[in-house]
Amino acid sequence: MIHLDPQQRLHKIVLQMPFNRLLGIRVTRRHKDGVTIECPLRHDLTNLAGVLHGGVTATMADAAVGIAIHSRFLGTRSATTVEMKVNYFLPVSGKKIRARAHLLRVGSTLCVGRVDLFNDSKKLVGTALVTYMLLPPEEKKR
Amino acid sequence: MIHLDPQQRLHKIVLQMPFNRLLGIRVTRRHKDGVTIECPLRHDLTNLAGVLHGGVTATMADAAVGIAIHSRFLGTRSATTVEMKVNYFLPVSGKKIRARAHLLRVGSTLCVGRVDLFNDSKKLVGTALVTYMLLPPEEKKR
Amino acid sequence: MIHLDPQQRLHKIVLQMPFNRLLGIRVTRRHKDGVTIECPLRHDLTNLAGVLHGGVTATMADAAVGIAIHSRFLGTRSATTVEMKVNYFLPVSGKKIRARAHLLRVGSTLCVGRVDLFNDSKKLVGTALVTYMLLPPEEKKR
Amino acid sequence: MIHLDPQQRLHKIVLQMPFNRLLGIRVTRRHKDGVTIECPLRHDLTNLAGVLHGGVTATMADAAVGIAIHSRFLGTRSATTVEMKVNYFLPVSGKKIRARAHLLRVGSTLCVGRVDLFNDSKKLVGTALVTYMLLPPEEKKR
Repeated sequence: MIHLDPQQRLHKIVLQMPFNRLLGIRVTRRHKDGVTIECPLRHDLTNLAGVLHGGVTATMADAAVGIAIHSRFLGTRSATTVEMKVNYFLPVSGKKIRARAHLLRVGSTLCVGRVDLFNDSKKLVGTALVTYMLLPPEEKKR
Repeated sequence: MIHLDPQQRLHKIVLQMPFNRLLGIRVTRRHKDGVTIECPLRHDLTNLAGVLHGGVTATMADAAVGIAIHSRFLGTRSATTVEMKVNYFLPVSGKKIRARAHLLRVGSTLCVGRVDLFNDSKKLVGTALVTYMLLPPEEKKR
Repeated sequence: MIHLDPQQRLHKIVLQMPFNRLLGIRVTRRHKDGVTIECPLRHDLTNLAGVLHGGVTATMADAAVGIAIHSRFLGTRSATTVEMKVNYFLPVSGKKIRARAHLLRVGSTLCVGRVDLFNDSKKLVGTALVTYMLLPPEEKKR
Repeated sequence: MIHLDPQQRLHKIVLQMPFNRLLGIRVTRRHKDGVTIECPLRHDLTNLAGVLHGGVTATMADAAVGIAIHSRFLGTRSATTVEMKVNYFLPVSGKKIRARAHLLRVGSTLCVGRVDLFNDSKKLVGTALVTYMLLPPEEKKR
């Protein structure tokens, strides 16, 4: 029997999320207050200008907070995105984009995370605020 | 020589946007104040809960306003996403998601669009506000 | 004994909200899906540039959705602002600012409203999305 | 002749902003990347629930970034709010609310600041992202 450490378990979960998998998102670190995820850039994630599509950056922000919540509750609670706000500072090119989610508020119903987005050169390329709603524990069983 | 009507031309442009193409986004209608785009749902656009990933919805919002601006300026101006805000009302499943962008404000520097998002049953599943910055005309030539 | 119609009752409630009263906000119309409120402009609501302070516009958006929820539930439910997003299109001057709130989504926990903001000339000067959380009915009694 | 230090000068400017003055906002600290401002709570800044009105919190966020930009450019550039997003975590009561603005991005056209909002007990009660547009230098002279 193989034992997985928490980050490996988390990464395994992420591979079960089809869209995150399509994009190639992977968890690179768990933190006390969140997670760091990364996505390698490739041509089919770009826009007409040849840089990363804003939708990928938004997906990273949404995913980072979702995975942070999953990690926080050890997978015992389901949650759904309520709303999200992304500010874009710089066009993203290079090898990857990194998203660091900080859970700022974990309430009984709502969780809010801030996500800072970085390029290869560790430059801040954007920031986001994402709100999730925790679903009642019984809905999990369905 | 084949002449394309404006919507066909617009659709051809969208096919040149790699990420929109990966998702399968297509323009279904041009309006006086914007455009309607659609994306067929498929398994690799979903999340762990089996419904459409919030990142796809966000991509639709971003793309709809970008395409509306492209349509408005007949492709003569480049623009880049400054910020975006999406509210999610209902989980999205079924055959497709539809995004209707309305350009609310077209300034000399900034354009703001509202995007209403609908499911198969024409139910409002979310709404978004997206801000683009028009790039100076000379940057287009580079 | 004097009987008040629904709009008068609503206006009376608004007068009990100290900050709305300080600003001079009043309900001018009830709609099926929301309310319209107005605020007369005056010097102490302006900023350094001599136009309406963005904070007043944001207050109008927040208040309009709060009052729309109050109206919808006939005052039987309490609600609190979860988050708000405002886009500013044009500087506001003249005699008043008007905010028209549309409740887009009324769920069992969250309500989302869109607010369109107009100046004297009925020009759209901004738009907002506001999320409220309905408090459990029992909390009302405390 | 009396010489004012930069913070006193900044505070003097803030007193010239009528709405900030009506609320009682004052600058308490200048930082390398922004400013801290405070507003004493009083009854006429509250809502029906007897806690701080969300519009005041939004005003604090807007003002904090505006003042941070003023401080950054030593008053040589004018700027106007483009959009703002506030997340509310906890109801605010007590003696004051404090807003710490961090300028995250200062571009040639747009500036984006993050504002963390704290209550008396230094607890994070909300957070905001605010975008300003710098006006062309010549407009200043008008």
